[in-house]
Order: sequence, then C-alpha cells, then structure tokens
Amino acid sequence: MTQALPHVVIVGAGFGGLRAARALAGKPVRVTMIDKRNYHLFQPLLYQVATAGISPHEIAYPVRAIFQRQKNFEFVMARVNGVDFARKTVLTESGEISYDYLILAAGASVNFFGNPSLEQNALPLKDVSDAVTVRNHVLRMFEQAAHESDLRKRQALLTFVVVGGGPTGVETAGALSELIRLVLRKDYRQINVENVRVILMEAAPTLLNGFPPALQAAARRSLEQKKVDVRVEAKVNNYDGEKLTLESGEVIPARTVLWSAGVRAASLMSKLGVEQDRMGRVRVLPTLQLPHAPDVYVIGDAAYLEENGKPLPMVAQVAMQQGVHAAQNILAAIQKKPLRPFRYADLGSMATIGRNAAVAAAFGMQFRGFLAWFVWLVVHLIGLIGFRNRLIVLINWAWDYFFYDRAVRLITRE
Amino acid sequence: MTQALPHVVIVGAGFGGLRAARALAGKPVRVTMIDKRNYHLFQPLLYQVATAGISPHEIAYPVRAIFQRQKNFEFVMARVNGVDFARKTVLTESGEISYDYLILAAGASVNFFGNPSLEQNALPLKDVSDAVTVRNHVLRMFEQAAHESDLRKRQALLTFVVVGGGPTGVETAGALSELIRLVLRKDYRQINVENVRVILMEAAPTLLNGFPPALQAAARRSLEQKKVDVRVEAKVNNYDGEKLTLESGEVIPARTVLWSAGVRAASLMSKLGVEQDRMGRVRVLPTLQLPHAPDVYVIGDAAYLEENGKPLPMVAQVAMQQGVHAAQNILAAIQKKPLRPFRYADLGSMATIGRNAAVAAAFGMQFRGFLAWFVWLVVHLIGLIGFRNRLIVLINWAWDYFFYDRAVRLITRE
Repeated sequence: MTQALPHVVIVGAGFGGLRAARALAGKPVRVTMIDKRNYHLFQPLLYQVATAGISPHEIAYPVRAIFQRQKNFEFVMARVNGVDFARKTVLTESGEISYDYLILAAGASVNFFGNPSLEQNALPLKDVSDAVTVRNHVLRMFEQAAHESDLRKRQALLTFVVVGGGPTGVETAGALSELIRLVLRKDYRQINVENVRVILMEAAPTLLNGFPPALQAAARRSLEQKKVDVRVEAKVNNYDGEKLTLESGEVIPARTVLWSAGVRAASLMSKLGVEQDRMGRVRVLPTLQLPHAPDVYVIGDAAYLEENGKPLPMVAQVAMQQGVHAAQNILAAIQKKPLRPFRYADLGSMATIGRNAAVAAAFGMQFRGFLAWFVWLVVHLIGLIGFRNRLIVLINWAWDYFFYDRAVRLITRE
Repeated sequence: MTQALPHVVIVGAGFGGLRAARALAGKPVRVTMIDKRNYHLFQPLLYQVATAGISPHEIAYPVRAIFQRQKNFEFVMARVNGVDFARKTVLTESGEISYDYLILAAGASVNFFGNPSLEQNALPLKDVSDAVTVRNHVLRMFEQAAHESDLRKRQALLTFVVVGGGPTGVETAGALSELIRLVLRKDYRQINVENVRVILMEAAPTLLNGFPPALQAAARRSLEQKKVDVRVEAKVNNYDGEKLTLESGEVIPARTVLWSAGVRAASLMSKLGVEQDRMGRVRVLPTLQLPHAPDVYVIGDAAYLEENGKPLPMVAQVAMQQGVHAAQNILAAIQKKPLRPFRYADLGSMATIGRNAAVAAAFGMQFRGFLAWFVWLVVHLIGLIGFRNRLIVLINWAWDYFFYDRAVRLITRE
C-alpha cells in the first residue's frame, strides 16, 4: 500500500531539507532523507562552540529524533556521490536510492577561492569538527604562550586573525575577544591581556555587507569597544601558518587565522553535470526545478535563483522558505496542479557582537545595542531544536553573562 | 620572595592530584601541576558519555578554572616523559621542571593483559576520546543495521559485548541496554529491539568483586531484568573485530566489544627505574614516599601499598585520601616534623545498573534498588566540579528519566 506512494528523496539535513521534510508530514508521499551526518546542525551558533561558550550537542540534534513521530519519514546516513537523472536514482556510498521526486538541499562548504596556503593553514568554521578544532587551537595557543619566553614567538601565539566581515566573522571576532578579555585573563595570570590581539579583516570597505550603513558603523564601533582591531579593505594573500601576508605587502606574524570569508555550494553540485555559477550554485527555474530534470528541485545554498535581477543570498531564511516551497510544488505536481514560482520574504538580518551588543535590521526598522542583542538571543533560542537544548543553552548564556565564564574551555584532541 | 618557597610539583590532574593541590592552598609552598590534558575528568560518569546520556564537558573541568583563586598554583600542560631523581627534575615534552617535592599521581591506563587482538579491536573506556568513540561506534552500528538485509551480518551489528564485571562494566552494560531498549527503539523503527543483544562477560564467578554477595546477586538480577545477558566464568581469548572467541571455544559474532576488564598504572611509572608490581604500580612506603627518593610521593592508581596484608584497591577514594595525605606529609617534612603513615578509610562502594536500580555498601550497611540508586545520584552529582555542571547534569538526568530520552545521540567523527 505505502509502497505505491510517490517517493520524495531529500539530500541534506540542513535548514532547507528539514523544512521540506516537515512540510511533507502527513501527506500521501514517502520521504527519505539522506545525510552524511546523523544530526541537524544549528549553524548560526557554531561560533559559540568555537569560542568555548557551548557544547556541540546543544546545537546538533539527531535527525531521527526530530522526525521520530513523522510516520512517512525514513533516514539514511550516507554520503551522496551523485545523481543519475535518467534512472531517477541517487548514488550513495552504501547503495542506490531511487526517487520519484528529489530535493537537493546539500548546502555549502568553505570557499578558500583556490588559495592553497589558506586552505592548508587557515581554520574554517563550517561544521562541528571545525568548531572544536578552533576551540582546541585557541586554548593551545594560550597554553604555549604561558611558557614561551621568546617575546616575538609569544606575540605570534597571541595574535588571532579572523578573515571575513560578514555576520560569522563579526560574531566570531566579538566572541573571541570577550573569551580572552573576560575569561582567559583569569586563567592565564602570566599573560598580559593587553598584548593579545584580535584582528578582523574584511576585503570590502565595510563590515556586514548588505546591512544598512548605520548598523555597519554601529557594529564596527561595538567591535572596537571590545578591543577588536577592525581592518577594512584588507585583502589576504598568503598564510604559511606563521605569517599572514596581505595584498598591501604587510606581514602579520600570527599562529591563528580563522577563515570565514566565503562559502560555495557543496561539492556534490559539481558532480551533476549541470550549469553552475562561480560559487558552484546550480541555476534553477523560479519553481526551484532543475531546467532539464523537472522532478529535481534544488534549494538553499546549493541553488542559484535571481529575484528582481539580484541573486538570492546564501542564508538560512532562503533555504527554509525554499524547503517549504519545494515540498508544496512537489505536492502540486503529484496532483497535476500548476507549480508556483518562489518569492523570498526577507525577514531581516542580524548579527551579535557580544555582551549587550548586536545589530538587527527587520520590518523596515533598525535595532542596535542591548535591544538588538536581546532580540538576537530570543530568535536564536527559538531556532534551536528541542526544549532541553533551549533550556541548557539559556542556562549557559545566563551563567556566562553574570559570571564572565565560558563552560567549555577544554582541549579535547591530542 | 615567593621564589624561595619550596616547590611542590604534582604530576596528574586526576582525583589524587587535585586533592593534593587543594590541600596545599594557602600554605608556604609553590605548587605546579603538570598534565597532558588541560582538564580534570570525573571518570565515574564516563560511561554516560559513551552511552549518549551526557556531554564530555559536563564531566571535564578545566584545571585552570578549578584553581583560578589558588594563588600559589601554576599549571603546565605537557606530557611527562620521566623523572631525574638525582637532579630533582621532571622531564616534560616542553622542557624540564625542577622540584623540591614531587607527587606522582599519574593514574592508570587500560590493561589488555598483552592480548594484541583485543588491544587492536576492542574499545576501551578510559578517557573522553574513548567515550566519544564508543558512542559514535554504537550509533553507527544501528545506522548500518537499519539498512543491512543479510540477517547474520545484521545480528553481528546488533550484538554488543561488554567485557569486565566491575562497576564500570556493570554500569556500561546497564546504560547501554537502556539506551537501546528505551531510546534507540524509537529512532530505529526498522529494528526489532528483541534482536539486539547486550552481553556482559566476567572471568570470575561473580560480578562486582569485593561487594557483599547479596549485592552481587542483586546487581545480576537487575541487569537481567534490563535484558542484559550476564555470563560469569567466561574468559575472552581473541577478538578480530568480527568474532569474539572465548576460552571455552565458543564464538560470538559481534561488531562491538567494549573492554573494561582491567587497568594498570600509567606508562610513566615504567620509565622511573623503580620496582613495580604486575599492574605496573610502584611500591611505596606507608608514608607514600618512594623508598630510595624520600622527596617523591606516589599516590592513587600508580602506587602499590598494602594494608592489613592486602593491596589497596585502584579506586578514586584511595587516590583522594592519599592526595591529602601526601600534601600533609610534605608540609610536615618542610617543618622537619615526623611523617605519618597512610590509613585508608573505606567509605564503601556503589554501582548503578540503570533506572531505579543500584547497589551500595557503606557504613556496614547494604542498599539496593531505588534507595541505592538515589544515593548514587546524589553522591555523583556532588562529586562533579562546578555548580553549572551539577545543574546541567541534573537537568539531563531528570529529562532522560521522565522522557526516556538521551541528549547526545550524535555521530561526531567521520
């Protein structure tokens, strides 16, 4: 009986895939989600894992737990190697899975823009493993600096460069500076915190590209108050693990370079033999279908779609709305009803800089300072999956706020 | 001024080292603690990390945070390679550290009793990394079993053997069985939980060696009620990763063998050139001093000391009491007062089997069932360091208890 229902396969358990699967709950379809990981990751708080504020499991939730009660849902943990459009089959490392409809929600990976020195030596911040690596690395720099008598080596150990002035870079630089100035200062009494440098580099003339200019300026002021050295129009050329070289020729000795300067569509998209933009995204019709394979929908960071002549941004909001939209179009297609073009409803953007400081643009209004920070807290708490995670993250945030502490100052790999 | 104070170096941030350092707070000595990790691990709850109940950071606490307010305390994160007794110097990977008094509290490591097949293929449970490996492995077995059509392969994927009937083995087997029967059952609807086997193997005729016989029997009954297949007098000969072979010749196909059948003193103890017992422990005087180097004290799992003709057990209680005692003897030695022999005050032992079930022997009394379980909870919550950790572990325990859930069902390594 259920075998006869149309089979919708969703590749990716990110924001887009999750919304698509939920929109198909209780509908006359079978849903199979495939992901190489067994959990959904709430990426907006990943920088807090990297800066020792929260633990990975508080922002990662098992896919099977999310859909425990959705009867038409199955999960397969496997890496996807490609799609055979002619045979309507997804090729995974552990076998083939055939589909009637396919939603590709494979997301994005880090973009080093083809610079091998950065790819090798800079630390990305895209998944749980990256975040734990950054946390371990930052703490290890302090452990080494505590017993380093050579002043130049010590300064390089205590110089932390964040490249990329988007929300992730801004949030990481702010959180890192607070971790050092409010928390690690107490752990490492031998280290004079005035000698520690956190530098935020952005190639464009302003931080937070796309935000209103007043908020861009407010974010910069907030960062500078938190002792972050903000540098705009600073392009990074090379990093050998010891020295960061800028396009201007300036050389900054630094043992830590965090890379949040760009993303590109997941590598799976290059294996499909379809047209991609320079970020690796696949061009889709306004209905989110692939032009040559109308049963295949591409959503989120992996899709390229223009609206009013401008490409949609690679943000969670777009992915979530497209997830729901792709599910609705599939249900329409099954019922032989006409498909509808996707329209993005921009709910605004926000970025937090640290204690009591954030910027937000929403509903045609601009917020900054404490109010924006409070709104940011509420929005991100609600975004977490599971009441327990919300409660525990709230306790951790409140604790850190009142006691100037960070719970997870652990070096967990050797 | 402070440079002239006697320098006490403590190797190891386990239960023993921690108590020794605390006992030296405010005293006229300088204290330096050395550990290869930057955190103290509350080992008694490690099995809960392995069975997806709690997150590593809830039982691991940064050493620097513990001693933030102890002014005469310094921490060095480094691996210790040896001790030069003649020059009174500890040799670490990042340089030499000289001492006036030395406390070796290096703890224990897993003992595979020289069986290379077990060493290679069985999973130990001794540090954070082991516990996360076990968690990932167990969940991965379920992911594979969900899509395995070969019945024999499937059965091997769903057979989990715990070797060792001490407290750790008993607690791990109980928690694993509950994870599977109460939680994973809901995640993996394709898997009939009746086909999943958890086997606890013990070479001796009874579980929980050293506990009163009535409690040994009660523990066994509790485990069997939780569907653990308990086998005593079962000796393991060989494990190739697919098949476990017993001394009796019986072969059990199993993809998972957890090893908690033995520990031995940390490998550092073999590098000192002093007399060791067959567990690698170093023989000490009743004052805890090394016979040939009276400025060096050895405590906890690394020390061998008899009391009433029987060696002291390798448990946390002994390490903690010896930590305080070694510190007191060092202070006495500085003041040229006589040193006192160590006397162990046995506060009792306990082991939990799972929901509402535990056994405890303390103050000449025996507890079992709900009361023992409740006492176990309180004792272990108090043992955790930091109010936040206690609160969050309590929330996690309460949540899991009432909702039959486990928070950390994540596969975090690829």
